[in-house]
Amino acid sequence: MPVIRHIGVLATCAADGGQGDIHPITNGALAWADGRIAWAGRDEDLPSQYAEERPANLGMPTPLVIPGLIDCHTHLAFGGWRAHEFVERIQGRTYQEIAAAGGGIASTVAQTHAISSEALFDKCESFLGEMFSLGILTVECKSGYGLTLAEELRILRVYRDLAAAGGPRIVSTLLGAHTVPPEMRGRRDAYVDLVVDEMIPAVARERLATCCDVFVERGAFTVDEARRILRAAREAGLAAKVHADQLSDGGGAALAAEVHAISADHLEHTSDAGIEAMARAGVVAVSLPLATMYLGQTPMPARRFIAAGVPVAVATDFNPGSAPSYHLPLALTLACTMQRMTPAEALKGATIYAARAVGLEAEIGSLEPGKRAEFLVLDAPSVDHWLYNFRPNARTAIAAEDELHWGRD
Amino acid sequence: MPVIRHIGVLATCAADGGQGDIHPITNGALAWADGRIAWAGRDEDLPSQYAEERPANLGMPTPLVIPGLIDCHTHLAFGGWRAHEFVERIQGRTYQEIAAAGGGIASTVAQTHAISSEALFDKCESFLGEMFSLGILTVECKSGYGLTLAEELRILRVYRDLAAAGGPRIVSTLLGAHTVPPEMRGRRDAYVDLVVDEMIPAVARERLATCCDVFVERGAFTVDEARRILRAAREAGLAAKVHADQLSDGGGAALAAEVHAISADHLEHTSDAGIEAMARAGVVAVSLPLATMYLGQTPMPARRFIAAGVPVAVATDFNPGSAPSYHLPLALTLACTMQRMTPAEALKGATIYAARAVGLEAEIGSLEPGKRAEFLVLDAPSVDHWLYNFRPNARTAIAAEDELHWGRD
Repeated sequence: MPVIRHIGVLATCAADGGQGDIHPITNGALAWADGRIAWAGRDEDLPSQYAEERPANLGMPTPLVIPGLIDCHTHLAFGGWRAHEFVERIQGRTYQEIAAAGGGIASTVAQTHAISSEALFDKCESFLGEMFSLGILTVECKSGYGLTLAEELRILRVYRDLAAAGGPRIVSTLLGAHTVPPEMRGRRDAYVDLVVDEMIPAVARERLATCCDVFVERGAFTVDEARRILRAAREAGLAAKVHADQLSDGGGAALAAEVHAISADHLEHTSDAGIEAMARAGVVAVSLPLATMYLGQTPMPARRFIAAGVPVAVATDFNPGSAPSYHLPLALTLACTMQRMTPAEALKGATIYAARAVGLEAEIGSLEPGKRAEFLVLDAPSVDHWLYNFRPNARTAIAAEDELHWGRD
Repeated sequence: MPVIRHIGVLATCAADGGQGDIHPITNGALAWADGRIAWAGRDEDLPSQYAEERPANLGMPTPLVIPGLIDCHTHLAFGGWRAHEFVERIQGRTYQEIAAAGGGIASTVAQTHAISSEALFDKCESFLGEMFSLGILTVECKSGYGLTLAEELRILRVYRDLAAAGGPRIVSTLLGAHTVPPEMRGRRDAYVDLVVDEMIPAVARERLATCCDVFVERGAFTVDEARRILRAAREAGLAAKVHADQLSDGGGAALAAEVHAISADHLEHTSDAGIEAMARAGVVAVSLPLATMYLGQTPMPARRFIAAGVPVAVATDFNPGSAPSYHLPLALTLACTMQRMTPAEALKGATIYAARAVGLEAEIGSLEPGKRAEFLVLDAPSVDHWLYNFRPNARTAIAAEDELHWGRD
């Protein structure tokens, strides 16, 4: 049974204790077997049956050990890119203006329709490889650049094939309700019917996703449309998620609470009433600071959510428009600088609360006996230091499937 | 003579044409020999003596080639770290409050006095190795955590030894006037005398630096004190630099123009009059977006400088307090999102204008015949794409001393 001893700081990240309590253990030890954590605690308390094992040699004097990171919000599969829109926004055009001119999501939908499934698989696999090297061991992946039954299913099947190919764990989410496709702008109800009556049943039948998400915003879907979609999703056995209040307070947070969503995401403009509703319903708030950085918008008010008792997760929002980066550690440092989350709070947001936001809290997200042995060994003296000293090449050992892999070095 | 052919985009970054003109050549070719660029232009125009050479095989279908990056503002050598201040700022304390309580620069000065020259060398060498892997081939390194004659010289001698050891080119800057050391707070004039009468002559005699910098700010040095120091530096053969207007408009930019400094740095709060004075005097404006990000402050108004005809450089400001990251590509992406510079403008700010800000414009910073053959080969379709899609592991080939090295991959 492998064991790591004399861990400088072992951050177990158990859920209790609130956003800032990562349950740090100084001079810790961690033993695991058959892919599961067997024991975690103070080295001096390590039971003798583990202590006899040869310790893993990591070449770090006082390693920091944390749970494998979880990116609980990405739009991983898309055709093309939109670098020109990045330049247009710098030159003063707004995201809404670019979308109105045929850019934005509609542009990526067209490019996604044009890419073969094989090319889409290869592109995603390359992203996932770089994410793995950053210590991201679970990735939530949304569809949403298909917007027809066949294309949404095609994207989700690419995710299914990626999951079968190894690499980071994939959690698939149907986001058929990303936007109303241009050709159906005059027939919104027919598109919502398509999502409810065809996409959700097909996805559930083929077990292509475990979650269903809706973009609630001016220009996307109304609260009433989203309610109908998410109720159908819940009845089909899918967990609900909501893109809420990114550009304005559109009632998305309150809807997430009403339908018992596992997460509401973005939340830059959520009202106090929405926050209170989320707290009562136990909905995780997913903040997306890379989108804030790329769009130059108001940061998600993480402190208000934390004060209200809402667990705050941090994810990348990786997509070719508003967040063209899958660098979750950068998102965590930005959560500190822009959202005023401490490094410990940010870490909990990318581990146990991110696990809750993808419905896998019982399996991953903390280093507790019985959970998956998925953790990172970092060459940093503390969690504070790790997110303060943003480095290109932080040396990372990644435990997955009982083997230690080296990330970038 | 080595040559790279069929370069997707060859951005030569010649100085003329203004901030946004990187002189891009589509389907370019680049030939070099004996460490110098021999020819750069369109592949179809490549003279036959170069065309016969076996092209370097880079494994990229359409590589992007840019000049080696130049970080023209770092405080590389310091003892200890200050991660706890990062957390204190998140919790609401200001940089000034932390400094008043014994933190800030004074804390790092004490930790720098306590570290051996050997340990300081090793620490800097590790930073420089990671910077090199990011494509940073020249690094300006300031002293300033010594604040006594012996300690300032000790830091600069570490830089001299690092320069002799290979790795990125080092440009050393005396920053004896970083702050008045605590023990001399009541004798400011005596400290300025020490800088002028002892540090500058000793540094010039031993050729330990080519530049001299002063921190002009409330709590640091006045314009009159800085004028005296920088005039003495100029007379001793050192180029002048100024930390100007970071926290308030303190007249630093105007002083930089008056003493014909090669750069004024920070400039978050410079007045229009200061900008105009810099434009007339040809002073480079060095923006430091990582410090803006870490401190959550107002971005440097790059567009106002560019509109006035001031060349804007972009650097990291790497130091253990306000900018604990040496990730220059991240600084460039932040210059785009926070300072509204286009990727092309940001690139020019980390190449030819950065070269000007360290007094090396004749040698480096652009890919023109006769200049040093220091360039990067990036796996990106365009400069826009490179800074838009912030990646952890951008595959980079680095040319230096006639050899191609691989950076992270």
